[in-house]
Amino acid sequence: MAEHTVMMKETLLALLNSKKYLSLRDILATMNPVDIAAIFDELEEDRLPLLFRLLPKELASETFVEMDPEAQELLIRGFSDSELKEVIDELYVDDAVDIVEEMPANVVRRILGQADPEMRKQINEILRYPEDSAGSIMTTECVTLRPDMTVEEAIKRIRRTGIDKETIYTCYVTEDRKLLGLTTVKDLLLCEDDEEVISEIMEENVISVNTLEDKEDVAQLFSKYDFLALPVVDAENRLVGIVTFDDAMDVIEEEVTEDMEKMAAMLPSEKPYMRLSTFEVFKNRIPWLMLLMVSATFTGMILNYFENALAKQIVLTSFIPMLMDTAGNSGSQTSVTIVRGLSIGEIALRDLPRILWKECRVAILCGVVLAATAFLKIFLVDNMLLGEEGITLGVMMTVCITLAITVLCAKLVGGTLPIVAERLGFDPAVMASPFITTIVDAIALLVYFQVASLLLGL
Amino acid sequence: MAEHTVMMKETLLALLNSKKYLSLRDILATMNPVDIAAIFDELEEDRLPLLFRLLPKELASETFVEMDPEAQELLIRGFSDSELKEVIDELYVDDAVDIVEEMPANVVRRILGQADPEMRKQINEILRYPEDSAGSIMTTECVTLRPDMTVEEAIKRIRRTGIDKETIYTCYVTEDRKLLGLTTVKDLLLCEDDEEVISEIMEENVISVNTLEDKEDVAQLFSKYDFLALPVVDAENRLVGIVTFDDAMDVIEEEVTEDMEKMAAMLPSEKPYMRLSTFEVFKNRIPWLMLLMVSATFTGMILNYFENALAKQIVLTSFIPMLMDTAGNSGSQTSVTIVRGLSIGEIALRDLPRILWKECRVAILCGVVLAATAFLKIFLVDNMLLGEEGITLGVMMTVCITLAITVLCAKLVGGTLPIVAERLGFDPAVMASPFITTIVDAIALLVYFQVASLLLGL
Repeated sequence: MAEHTVMMKETLLALLNSKKYLSLRDILATMNPVDIAAIFDELEEDRLPLLFRLLPKELASETFVEMDPEAQELLIRGFSDSELKEVIDELYVDDAVDIVEEMPANVVRRILGQADPEMRKQINEILRYPEDSAGSIMTTECVTLRPDMTVEEAIKRIRRTGIDKETIYTCYVTEDRKLLGLTTVKDLLLCEDDEEVISEIMEENVISVNTLEDKEDVAQLFSKYDFLALPVVDAENRLVGIVTFDDAMDVIEEEVTEDMEKMAAMLPSEKPYMRLSTFEVFKNRIPWLMLLMVSATFTGMILNYFENALAKQIVLTSFIPMLMDTAGNSGSQTSVTIVRGLSIGEIALRDLPRILWKECRVAILCGVVLAATAFLKIFLVDNMLLGEEGITLGVMMTVCITLAITVLCAKLVGGTLPIVAERLGFDPAVMASPFITTIVDAIALLVYFQVASLLLGL
Repeated sequence: MAEHTVMMKETLLALLNSKKYLSLRDILATMNPVDIAAIFDELEEDRLPLLFRLLPKELASETFVEMDPEAQELLIRGFSDSELKEVIDELYVDDAVDIVEEMPANVVRRILGQADPEMRKQINEILRYPEDSAGSIMTTECVTLRPDMTVEEAIKRIRRTGIDKETIYTCYVTEDRKLLGLTTVKDLLLCEDDEEVISEIMEENVISVNTLEDKEDVAQLFSKYDFLALPVVDAENRLVGIVTFDDAMDVIEEEVTEDMEKMAAMLPSEKPYMRLSTFEVFKNRIPWLMLLMVSATFTGMILNYFENALAKQIVLTSFIPMLMDTAGNSGSQTSVTIVRGLSIGEIALRDLPRILWKECRVAILCGVVLAATAFLKIFLVDNMLLGEEGITLGVMMTVCITLAITVLCAKLVGGTLPIVAERLGFDPAVMASPFITTIVDAIALLVYFQVASLLLGL
């Protein structure tokens, strides 16, 4: 909660304590429902219903939609049947579905019991679509026009039926429920001839999605084409609903959070962090920690294998963290770049050869510069300044050559793995960071000992 | 470019080669400008102007806006003055500004020369705002209404002036240019009384931003409140423009890419990856690689310091990668969670104590489970199965206790650093991943040798 919201909460509570209900009502009426909801989410159980009842009817349901499921459930349990009906009647169908999905069964029964039959039917329809499908995030309320209507008739229809539609700005032209085209309120209003027929001015090449399409792909269409709304059709091209841009923005935000979680070796979580219990956080984090810990054993085994060599030139050990870290960083730079490029649709599978060639050149530049820096640093600091023993020219060459080769390998692995994962149908984000670190760590050590045995004859 | 766009490109080129211009024009007219632009971006220099000239006027400028700067420049250089004027006349001001910003000076002079005086004035006005400010991404074209207008007059005004506005759906009510309130086309159309006065139905509590506000903060407001447009005002609350949701979505996408780049130890890049030269990629990646390589030296120095102890119990070396990797992964799990929470506004600075307490409990759970797993694995695999030498109960205890302590430290560092960075005004994303790995690596080693000297008496 932002600072100004915290101050607002204090003000509201002070007014509530001194029973200044009229002022409270006035203040609340000026506030944005998103901000009211943020405050209501943190109220104690006995304050919430009192304050909520002070909201004007429309603002009340707008606020209700924005609240946490816990607070929503609390309110519903305290509502009389008629209060519940009042809130539900004001909801858009897709928001009602979101609420129903989060509530326990007995609360859901009460909600559906108070919804009018038409809404109940629509809620049940949307609930039937699989999670993560376009159908599950759409709303069934949208403006439809007939192709033979005139512009004037169309505007009249919008004025008559628009009241409980989430958006009226994009209107869909249908015949026998089949989607023929779309037009916008802007086009209708700016059309100079009121008698013009809709089929003449509508856009016929409509981009639509199927009910079962993955909601992340739907969201990508929004950020690619800047749509306000996108029609959802069934297998027979019949219009069943629309997805609006606000829901698409939520999906994109969730998706980015999931990608970041996967890159940081976590299972993606369903709920926001602050609402996860300690045990839920633990459950999301432990599987990857454990898997990566066990796979780091391979790196340990490589070290073990070269134990005797290391014992002869113990100074080699002190460069291991630097080599492993640099390899890991080089690899994840590349893999994160590729994963992000894939997810915003900037990079396609067929770009792989071009990407690898670019990464090769970048790796050679990075490798040479890093090796030169490391050489200077070891010579000037470790050798001259600190006077460490055993830092021969051979050791320095070994470290620097290893560095250059490792950076090249790391960037190639980092560039290839996510694209291969995508092609095989795995999630590239999972391959991105933690896995690659483990792989390039092992590569770094193998290269190190190979170079050492060549140059130092271990 | 998606597969179906590649196929479309082949079709268009085939038609172009056989000079079937009429069919080409028909096909292009059915396509979305975003898709046409994706194809045009990859055409050879001699094909592009020919195909572009086949587009109907409006589609031509919609396509032009979506194209890469390189392709835009190519076209402009080929345009006659009247062709250039035709494209520019159709542009929205904010799109014109985006194009001007990417062009070399002589092209900019030609563009401004062909723009009509009003547009030239508006372009120059927007160009004056600092990069990354709300002013720099706004458009000056929006619908303004007077408070004393009736609904009917307002609708008439929109129909008369809306033609070259990017969005007409949110209308701003101003008097002497001061922003008084807003209303929407939906409210106007659904208003039952055409004689109602705008000041009666307008929303007076308008969320607006200042011209100099950071564009990322502006974008956050969009995803928080689901706005279609947001008014931009100057210091005297005079309306100077609006930011539309599509521009906000672009800013969010850029910002996420930047955050991911910073987390993966890269400098954020200005251009998309595919358009960066090898040297530009190198320049973004080398500074952090070098910094992190040099700081990994500290880890190496710790290893060096305990060289003699290690020589006595060389088996300890083989567990170092596992301890360092697990520490790094634990730390970045926490830091990435916090950085993402901060950036979507879910976590605030004042939540720090609650977060640290939760992370403590998670760390203890993770630490205990990982230590137990490591104990079993070392005992069963390394000791029994592989029969490695030197794995005493003391060594096993040393590794497991270090693991548990390190995970706790890593999660506390990962939880504290990004929040401290945010409070000090640094970028939390930079602190998130690479830095934390380096710090917890060092911690892991220090703990390891401390525990070893206590338990094994090194």
